[in-house]
Amino acid sequence: MFFEGAEKKLEIRLTPKLASLRLREYGFWSTLVACANAEILSTISNDVCDAYLLSESSLFVWDDKILLLTCGNSTLIEAACHFINALGAEHIAALCYQRKNEYQAQLQSTSFADDIAKLRTLIPGKAFRVGHLDSHHHYLFCTDNQFCTENQSISSSETCLELMMYHIHGELADYLKLPTQTEQGIYQRLGLQQLFGDFQLDMHCFQPAGFSLNAIRGADYFTLHITPSVEQGDNSYVSFETNLDLAVYPHPVAARLVDLFSPTSWDLISFNRPINTAGFPAHICLGQGLVTTESGCQISFRHYQQLETQVLQPEYM
Amino acid sequence: MFFEGAEKKLEIRLTPKLASLRLREYGFWSTLVACANAEILSTISNDVCDAYLLSESSLFVWDDKILLLTCGNSTLIEAACHFINALGAEHIAALCYQRKNEYQAQLQSTSFADDIAKLRTLIPGKAFRVGHLDSHHHYLFCTDNQFCTENQSISSSETCLELMMYHIHGELADYLKLPTQTEQGIYQRLGLQQLFGDFQLDMHCFQPAGFSLNAIRGADYFTLHITPSVEQGDNSYVSFETNLDLAVYPHPVAARLVDLFSPTSWDLISFNRPINTAGFPAHICLGQGLVTTESGCQISFRHYQQLETQVLQPEYM
Repeated sequence: MFFEGAEKKLEIRLTPKLASLRLREYGFWSTLVACANAEILSTISNDVCDAYLLSESSLFVWDDKILLLTCGNSTLIEAACHFINALGAEHIAALCYQRKNEYQAQLQSTSFADDIAKLRTLIPGKAFRVGHLDSHHHYLFCTDNQFCTENQSISSSETCLELMMYHIHGELADYLKLPTQTEQGIYQRLGLQQLFGDFQLDMHCFQPAGFSLNAIRGADYFTLHITPSVEQGDNSYVSFETNLDLAVYPHPVAARLVDLFSPTSWDLISFNRPINTAGFPAHICLGQGLVTTESGCQISFRHYQQLETQVLQPEYM
Repeated sequence: MFFEGAEKKLEIRLTPKLASLRLREYGFWSTLVACANAEILSTISNDVCDAYLLSESSLFVWDDKILLLTCGNSTLIEAACHFINALGAEHIAALCYQRKNEYQAQLQSTSFADDIAKLRTLIPGKAFRVGHLDSHHHYLFCTDNQFCTENQSISSSETCLELMMYHIHGELADYLKLPTQTEQGIYQRLGLQQLFGDFQLDMHCFQPAGFSLNAIRGADYFTLHITPSVEQGDNSYVSFETNLDLAVYPHPVAARLVDLFSPTSWDLISFNRPINTAGFPAHICLGQGLVTTESGCQISFRHYQQLETQVLQPEYM
């Protein structure tokens, strides 16, 4: 059985006219994630953010914004349409819908083209793919600016870094395949105390393997999801995402994670910040692209592979 | 409209008990290729081989063997099953079914896993994938040896080279997008007179673009198919395949083709011969694998990319 680790991502910012999203009751959020075929496992909160750990990734809710990530064969587009209809398209200041490079796109219930055709019946926007179809590539849909003044859109000062790692190796990767893995065991091996000591964490190990982590500190978040590929050949996948400005953060988080997971290849998508490769293992950048959206958001994409030629073993079927 | 250039390939060798396949009438072959949703456009013949140029690639017929290549969303697996049923599985000495790396696997009507499930209801065999799912990869199914003595199988002395080129650039690529392209224009630009002067050729230009070529000389063949990607972003694809032993052929055919088409990336699959990279442009080998089948056939796979980092332009949707 194949499990698609790669996430779909939905980020929505509301106009200021609405009451805080955090006043909505639990049932609103459980219904929303159910539209995507996910369920809420646990929740952490602070003064400005609620973080829901899901059976298939994560939901973060701020007063005027949500971030919903779902993996597997989830139907995130249904959650997006449900949310727009529930709140009214006129209250959506900005929406960004993304699909990350999938191992087996043909097993998904919809394609990105299907998804944006549905979205565009509710809200106008620009969509694009960056990266060739026969290599790593990512899809993005961003709404047009027409609904909002500049400071209501997903602004060009907001940062986000997405790190996607494929085919992990080494001691940590071996541990992550064990049925004996624990949340604390992963926490320690990742050095999270050192990297993120002042964050509130919510961690969950899945059976037979797999790990999810939500973390918040004020309005800051990071989230980490591990699909270790126990039974299905080497299709492991790890994602990390944060809105921290890593250019001024005291730890080299991306380099540390790439070093720990030792992926054969990895992608970085950075919003409104240059990409820093200091500390990465010896690598080649196979592809890079830079896109500026209508609202002025600068999106950088890089696809890296470790420098040595991969020796490929046949995968019998 | 997207057209999938990547081919599916079927190679079948019969046991010696049957009459020559070349005695079968035209209707047998037109029915066979119709099972794959293709049709015969033209035919060339010599003393030992008939070569059919198809609306979607090529069919070669020898006394005891067929090679059928189809691209697009063709249903080659249906042709495979039709052929096995028409001749009787007991008369199949060896069968090899292959699917090359597809740009958009999710647009195909079946997956390789679907195809081999169907094949295995008729004939036993080993199947594998070589190459990671998130990079170039190829699928192969080869029948077990149980039906045949060693010299009836697709033997370890037979050679085949498959060259697949992705994202072509340069003067020739530009010419291949023009509606004014002609068979003779392509013939001259490829230098086919110099490379293959003693082969009998059958060439066809498609509308609005696209080119197919079959060539035979005794039992030797080569075939070339060009999908130039006129309207759909940079998803161009060119395939070349031959049973010539290029190690002793007087021209460096693969290097010459890579030089002419200047693909961003290319794959080589070689049966029973080492891969020679002399004359290739500056490149990195991203992946390589070697598989030995039950019948002793050695299959080498290499995935190359030109050395410079690709600068990726967003593809708007």
